[in-house]
Amino acid sequence: MRQADDVMPCDAAEITDWDATADVVVVGFGAAGSTAAFSAAEAGAQVLVVERTGGPGGAAALAEGIVYLGGGTPVQRACGFEDSLDDMYRYLMAACGPDPDQAKISRYVEESLGHFDWLVARGVPFDPTFCAETQMAPTGTEGLVYSGGEDAYPFNEIARPAPRGHLARTKRSTGWLLMQHLATAATEAGATAWADTRIDRLVVSGGHVVGVQGQRFGETVSFRARRGVVLTAGGFVFNDDMLRRHCPPLVRGTFKVGTEGDDGRGIRMAQALGAAVRNMYAGEVSLPIIPPRKLVHGILVNGRGQRFINEDTYMGRVGQAALYEHDGEAYLIVDEACYEPNWMGLAASWVCETTAELEAEMGLPAGSLQATVELYNRHAASGEDPLFHKGRNWVRPLVPPIGAIDLRVGPAPYAPFTLGGLETTVDGAVLDLKGDPVGGLWAAGRTTAGVCSFGYASGLSIGDSTIFGRLAGAAAAAAPTTA
Amino acid sequence: MRQADDVMPCDAAEITDWDATADVVVVGFGAAGSTAAFSAAEAGAQVLVVERTGGPGGAAALAEGIVYLGGGTPVQRACGFEDSLDDMYRYLMAACGPDPDQAKISRYVEESLGHFDWLVARGVPFDPTFCAETQMAPTGTEGLVYSGGEDAYPFNEIARPAPRGHLARTKRSTGWLLMQHLATAATEAGATAWADTRIDRLVVSGGHVVGVQGQRFGETVSFRARRGVVLTAGGFVFNDDMLRRHCPPLVRGTFKVGTEGDDGRGIRMAQALGAAVRNMYAGEVSLPIIPPRKLVHGILVNGRGQRFINEDTYMGRVGQAALYEHDGEAYLIVDEACYEPNWMGLAASWVCETTAELEAEMGLPAGSLQATVELYNRHAASGEDPLFHKGRNWVRPLVPPIGAIDLRVGPAPYAPFTLGGLETTVDGAVLDLKGDPVGGLWAAGRTTAGVCSFGYASGLSIGDSTIFGRLAGAAAAAAPTTA
Repeated sequence: MRQADDVMPCDAAEITDWDATADVVVVGFGAAGSTAAFSAAEAGAQVLVVERTGGPGGAAALAEGIVYLGGGTPVQRACGFEDSLDDMYRYLMAACGPDPDQAKISRYVEESLGHFDWLVARGVPFDPTFCAETQMAPTGTEGLVYSGGEDAYPFNEIARPAPRGHLARTKRSTGWLLMQHLATAATEAGATAWADTRIDRLVVSGGHVVGVQGQRFGETVSFRARRGVVLTAGGFVFNDDMLRRHCPPLVRGTFKVGTEGDDGRGIRMAQALGAAVRNMYAGEVSLPIIPPRKLVHGILVNGRGQRFINEDTYMGRVGQAALYEHDGEAYLIVDEACYEPNWMGLAASWVCETTAELEAEMGLPAGSLQATVELYNRHAASGEDPLFHKGRNWVRPLVPPIGAIDLRVGPAPYAPFTLGGLETTVDGAVLDLKGDPVGGLWAAGRTTAGVCSFGYASGLSIGDSTIFGRLAGAAAAAAPTTA
Repeated sequence: MRQADDVMPCDAAEITDWDATADVVVVGFGAAGSTAAFSAAEAGAQVLVVERTGGPGGAAALAEGIVYLGGGTPVQRACGFEDSLDDMYRYLMAACGPDPDQAKISRYVEESLGHFDWLVARGVPFDPTFCAETQMAPTGTEGLVYSGGEDAYPFNEIARPAPRGHLARTKRSTGWLLMQHLATAATEAGATAWADTRIDRLVVSGGHVVGVQGQRFGETVSFRARRGVVLTAGGFVFNDDMLRRHCPPLVRGTFKVGTEGDDGRGIRMAQALGAAVRNMYAGEVSLPIIPPRKLVHGILVNGRGQRFINEDTYMGRVGQAALYEHDGEAYLIVDEACYEPNWMGLAASWVCETTAELEAEMGLPAGSLQATVELYNRHAASGEDPLFHKGRNWVRPLVPPIGAIDLRVGPAPYAPFTLGGLETTVDGAVLDLKGDPVGGLWAAGRTTAGVCSFGYASGLSIGDSTIFGRLAGAAAAAAPTTA
């Protein structure tokens, strides 16, 4: 038996016994895998889903469960928000950049309204209520949140703001409920699942993917795919070696978002066959500051006491900036009027009568925080923030006594996951290094590079996974049989 | 004939006629290729070097030509500098990070003194004189410069500073002279060269590399390698598509450093065989501000009027920070005492009686530059820079009238090249995605990920290329024959 980390392809001629055969073999039973399996099965294909853990769910089942959808969904309309596909497109092109995948964003937007209906038809319930306090899953069952800084600079000037983070009807983390419905949908559509089975490599015949091979309870297992294999095996945030090679800032992330299955195996087994990757340096990094949203009246500074971002933007953008560009050193400066310990108990580590005392206690260079607060307050007196364009609602001078919440890596949780992966077409075909599809191979979800090249909004992972998972499953089901 | 961008491997069984056969085939005749060819030939191997342009030289021949060497070279000693291998090691481990390749740095340092002698033995002349004004090639023939901020924070606190940038005896760009000697050395050692021949893909037999295939004047050509192939085909800064996938900030670089041959073909043809890469996001970005070095008395600010780095560090670190973290927006604020147009004619675009007027003319947010200058001047009055630790020699208050040199992308040249590439052992063996050597395949130079994971010093590219080129050539020559 080959080593688990041996992702190099296996020649079909070496396999004498196939443990099972299907038209389409889906690797991974998370958000992308379940939707790929559903759509392949719905198209009439015989589908086998192979999952390394004991059952379906993947990272999505552990997640907040936000699905990024817009253009005027029933939930958006019920909550009184106007939205258009055009605004959604312009927001995504700006927020997912630099240089995001335009073809995927276009398709994502086109599919958005239909995908909402599709989720509802799969039984996923949504409360038509809005929560303004958070960019994550609310503590209640509200079905809609701002999840990407749509209402903050610069996006509020690029597209009409609308909240597009949709959540299934349950409290806090809602991904488990979403996944329950998606996994059931796949199974009811006819897909068969093998659990506790980890796929390690692709099986090829004449350069064409005809199956997969892996391990189940210490035995080698091989599955034949007559039409195609769909890789939906997650990202690589749980593989420190891959992070060091491709995405070193995320090594320091303290609350990795995903499962231990996010070890990049799906990416590597396709790369071993000459598949191309992109955006491997990109990572989303949530720094969960709000709720309460009134904390946004404070100012974020780095280790030199300098501001670095508009505090009212998406907390995932704050985390990216802090970890990638400021060495994971950030502080939120607050006054009494805007302060209270945040939802996860992050409280002020320092409180002083003056900014001068505060900067001294924090160990910031003398005068640095004072200069920053003075400049901020001077403009804030007239509701302006010419440096970072925080919205007027959140801009007013900070009044001593003044304190700081320690948002450095360690005291604060940095919650990263990877955004880079296999290069795929809109239909999920995996492309090789010369730009041609690898025969018999599709992929979706965090195994691929999705709509985001670097910027992110909450809900785009499950959106990527489920929208493009459906397309990949359908494409694999429609491929000609190889035997 | 296959397309030029078809880097997928070719099976040896498809080749009926080999155009030439050698023990070792070296792809590319630049700094890495010439040294690999020399050492393979010196070890008794029959060597063929295949070069896509009309002759030897590669990017090194167009370069400043700095070679990073230390530990007490004859040039360092003649110039009165003490250096040790330990200081060189500690500097490199700090400056080449985060998390640089420790094994390669150790070997690089061990080889350093012997490599200097080896270059001299190849006829490369060095003037035993030091130039303090520049971090690049001097206008004179001086043989030694500080080329990596060794004498600036934080490196001056990590290792005893010593200049380690060595230059062959000629004015300004010295790479052509270095390459003349290295190419001659390879040829005199017995290597045969084919020019005007572009290699597009590897030829494999049973997963082992046994040759290469490419084009020469429109015809397909194939070369058999009995012992091994050494890829020394440059980086990928001239391939915008690869930059967009792996290293988007460099797309904006205006003065790409390299040749059009730096299209990443060497990296991709190995990846197509399952080779691993690392550090693909890393790029060196020179922003050539000094000489004159007195400009370092000024302060660098970003588009918010904030300082972001100690101005006395290596200009390659300044360029990286400006392009990767500040959107390519930087300005050097100067007063009369420190100002003169720099060596390439960059002059002050704005000059004003007061900082307030200057920030208004520059379009910076009101008060932002004033706050920065006030804070800087307050500390500078006592020779301190607690924010960025610029050295005392360069710290004194700025006195109006005050001006700014426009260092934005466009007005100023940003000169990037890529640092990421194939994962190799110290001996140049190319590793696959499971960490095993790809049989018959070695690599060196910018085709590989060298000693730098992100940070850089001038001279490390030619150092990487020539030190590890020699090792790779020797290793390939010592491999068993496949036929």
